[in-house]
Amino acid sequence: MNIEVCFTPQAYPLFHNPNSIVVVIDILRATSAITTAFFNGVSKMIPVATVEEAASYKHQGYMVAAERNGEILEGFDLGNSPFGYMNAKVKGKTIVITTTNGTQAIEASKQAKKIIIGSFLNQDSVIDYLRKEKKDVLFVCAGWKNKFNMEDTLFAGAIAHDLIYKYDFTTSCDSTLSAIHLHSLAKHNLYGFLSNSSHRNRLAKLDLERDIKYCLTPNQCPVIPIMEGNFLVKA
Amino acid sequence: MNIEVCFTPQAYPLFHNPNSIVVVIDILRATSAITTAFFNGVSKMIPVATVEEAASYKHQGYMVAAERNGEILEGFDLGNSPFGYMNAKVKGKTIVITTTNGTQAIEASKQAKKIIIGSFLNQDSVIDYLRKEKKDVLFVCAGWKNKFNMEDTLFAGAIAHDLIYKYDFTTSCDSTLSAIHLHSLAKHNLYGFLSNSSHRNRLAKLDLERDIKYCLTPNQCPVIPIMEGNFLVKA
Repeated sequence: MNIEVCFTPQAYPLFHNPNSIVVVIDILRATSAITTAFFNGVSKMIPVATVEEAASYKHQGYMVAAERNGEILEGFDLGNSPFGYMNAKVKGKTIVITTTNGTQAIEASKQAKKIIIGSFLNQDSVIDYLRKEKKDVLFVCAGWKNKFNMEDTLFAGAIAHDLIYKYDFTTSCDSTLSAIHLHSLAKHNLYGFLSNSSHRNRLAKLDLERDIKYCLTPNQCPVIPIMEGNFLVKA
Repeated sequence: MNIEVCFTPQAYPLFHNPNSIVVVIDILRATSAITTAFFNGVSKMIPVATVEEAASYKHQGYMVAAERNGEILEGFDLGNSPFGYMNAKVKGKTIVITTTNGTQAIEASKQAKKIIIGSFLNQDSVIDYLRKEKKDVLFVCAGWKNKFNMEDTLFAGAIAHDLIYKYDFTTSCDSTLSAIHLHSLAKHNLYGFLSNSSHRNRLAKLDLERDIKYCLTPNQCPVIPIMEGNFLVKA
């Protein structure tokens, strides 16, 4: 079972492998929000790439989350703060979601055999799922507007490390080796390690320190969101 | 003066900055070969992206280097082994060159204000050049067929570290921070650190250990190759 890490949605076609399970990662904050949503009882989510698609669902009466550049777009119900999904009003609902990077990464991976959603919040559940599936794994980092992103890479490194050193996975991919090395430097203090990172600073300006700390705390939401057709559901 | 690292030629348009000096990096082996060539008295080089262009220069009587997947293409004079350029027959010559990744990275960066060639072989010369120029710096890693590559990243990290910690450069770019972290782990034994890396293994199969060790040994060729129009010349 081979592991690769694709650092940006733009690069996905270079990594496409019909046998891979794709793990989409957007730690700050889309995949953390999605993981939190399913842990809090959301029934289904519909990830869409554009604000136009999101608006059209809104007109049909759906609950819709729409974020761009860290902020909720006017006229929509939710953004990508995980705290927005810790609320009785989401329970049992189908929620449409579009975000700056995370939903683009899901869109880019659409040709994959299977897509699951990863975040520190469901870290051990992701490891458990992948080791039982025994398939090649491709981590697709959402990045920031197709640029490399630190926190997504750290999460890929955390999972890749355990799959390789505790189970029978292998890699011959420099991006995977880098992710593992970076996680080894960061793991004892993820929040501190990210103090100079671009996205932590971008969100800090928006007064989202509470979101950042939550998103970097492992295993608070032991669920696996998985794509089935155009829907995300709980595996 | 801001520093960014672009991990693959594919991503160049996302990083283009009309004020940046671009440092093209293909440690194994194109930019190491080019640095070696100028140190050994080559007069000019003409980097071209395709084998067809290289062949057309060959028909015009030029000395032509052409490499794909680590090997010299049949009918051409040289490949991208630096040792091919340590030869009196190259002195004063204009050499056309096309390689799997390195010349693609130069091609991708063509819109840049200024392009120089970096390798461990001219490491201190590159630092010296950039600190005197006092401009934004964009490292463009050649990678491997548009995938992330370890050794190119380590070199970018080495230079970025010195520019930031010894001179007045800054960065807010996660790929630069990653390159610096990875270089900090690798710097005491570059060859050992790369033992699992994809390209070192690719070249080892071609019996190119001598090339690899040479390309990882800093400051053997204190020259700066620079693009002037379609030519590389010595700065």
